[in-house]
Amino acid sequence: MPNLSKRLVAFQGERGAYSEIAARTFFGNEIHLSPSQTFDLVFRKVEKGIAGFGVIPIENSLAGSIHQNYDLLLKHRLHIVGELNVRIVHNLIAHAGISLSRVRRVFSHPQALMQCQNNVGKLKRVEIVPTYDTAGSVKKIMEEKILDGAAIASELAARIYGMKILRRQLQDNSENFTRFLILSRTAQPPPNANKTSVVYSVKNVPGALFRSLGVFALRDIDLFKIESRPLHGKPWEYLFYIDFAGSPKDKNCKNALEHLAEITTFMKVLGSYRRDQGRKV
Amino acid sequence: MPNLSKRLVAFQGERGAYSEIAARTFFGNEIHLSPSQTFDLVFRKVEKGIAGFGVIPIENSLAGSIHQNYDLLLKHRLHIVGELNVRIVHNLIAHAGISLSRVRRVFSHPQALMQCQNNVGKLKRVEIVPTYDTAGSVKKIMEEKILDGAAIASELAARIYGMKILRRQLQDNSENFTRFLILSRTAQPPPNANKTSVVYSVKNVPGALFRSLGVFALRDIDLFKIESRPLHGKPWEYLFYIDFAGSPKDKNCKNALEHLAEITTFMKVLGSYRRDQGRKV
Repeated sequence: MPNLSKRLVAFQGERGAYSEIAARTFFGNEIHLSPSQTFDLVFRKVEKGIAGFGVIPIENSLAGSIHQNYDLLLKHRLHIVGELNVRIVHNLIAHAGISLSRVRRVFSHPQALMQCQNNVGKLKRVEIVPTYDTAGSVKKIMEEKILDGAAIASELAARIYGMKILRRQLQDNSENFTRFLILSRTAQPPPNANKTSVVYSVKNVPGALFRSLGVFALRDIDLFKIESRPLHGKPWEYLFYIDFAGSPKDKNCKNALEHLAEITTFMKVLGSYRRDQGRKV
Repeated sequence: MPNLSKRLVAFQGERGAYSEIAARTFFGNEIHLSPSQTFDLVFRKVEKGIAGFGVIPIENSLAGSIHQNYDLLLKHRLHIVGELNVRIVHNLIAHAGISLSRVRRVFSHPQALMQCQNNVGKLKRVEIVPTYDTAGSVKKIMEEKILDGAAIASELAARIYGMKILRRQLQDNSENFTRFLILSRTAQPPPNANKTSVVYSVKNVPGALFRSLGVFALRDIDLFKIESRPLHGKPWEYLFYIDFAGSPKDKNCKNALEHLAEITTFMKVLGSYRRDQGRKV
């Protein structure tokens, strides 16, 4: 995507985060990076035009959806313009010259620690230290010269901070993928868009969810994902996030969205984009 | 429920946790309590018969589902025998004699901190310290004699640890409820059971989710909740957790479950129990 390059791309985490890998894979290496402390800040940077694009994780194939980002998609006025599946490969990273037997503390984000818990459990006399970030943990043991510490993070993080990989493929389950979304301030469905995301709520009456899914099923439109999130202020009522095949350029999908608008109490199209299948297996 | 009393009830967290409030509300005060460090431990205590019942949060009306507990319901062979909605009232708790102006650090679970962030943000020169537990934070500032610290937790926690409530109703949104499930080793649907929970997966073919919901819609059976969780080892395929009205004692529901078994690749009934509506508003 050469026309998108040389742009500022915001992502959550320190340099070397898995989101940076997603950004480089999607846009190529000719981008400028804007590491951000929180997901909310990523959304705000793109909304204000400080960054051209944002890259956020939305779902992991083991841990499930990242709900905070579903909620932020609703709160902010951004558009999904792309998606990307990235295989997550965790590595144990330490200072050069430090052997595995010297490691007494393992730092990482709780999610990464959980995904490696069997392998980390095999290490002897090691204390687990949860942190706010995978790549940030590598930065921490580098900057603070923690010689008895190792961090779980990406190979890119090891390279960026000049650290050494002690063990590769630390994750317990190799079928570990994260799906990332590319966000923009302007809707710009690519010509080959074949996937659309929408969020809606329905009246709290029997059969309402079934009818809303019928909008797609009766038109032979595939659903890829359904996610329910609480509707604030209305306990035990829900918003539904649906990813389906097609884009409003197709008459069939356009009709489906019009039909959905008829029977929902709230509806927002989050974007149409090219589905990423390639990196799944 | 006098026949269930005087039993050991396991819950996650320290004494004074919101789960303890749920346990006392459901069973009465004549129970023995088994505080447990993790949710997994609660399940294991009940599975091994160490505790008669377990009480776990499954969903919060602001934050959404507690996915770890959905996953544990699948992993362990327990039965849901009851549910309870509890209004979550957060309080700022400190040592007696400490005024609000002396508080420099606020300790609590990240979820509770988030639910109070507007009100906590109004406090001047205060550091936020995330901890593993709400009630555990009260215990910590009590035991470690942290005089410049306050914890966000339940009124029960303040009472148990002999601490003082500095501010009541600290949460930003008063419509804050958590739904708890009561777990048992044996299925024991109460005579008035009117709600059933089931988890299943469907073939990865178009319209499969729609057809599975049709099982209920075509029989005029209300759905209360749908939750999707990743199917491990099959990236971007899902398990669906459904709560619906009725119990297999009703012919209509029994037929629905038989129909669901026909069209699913995996199915497990998690339990039938009495729906709790009373404490919702």
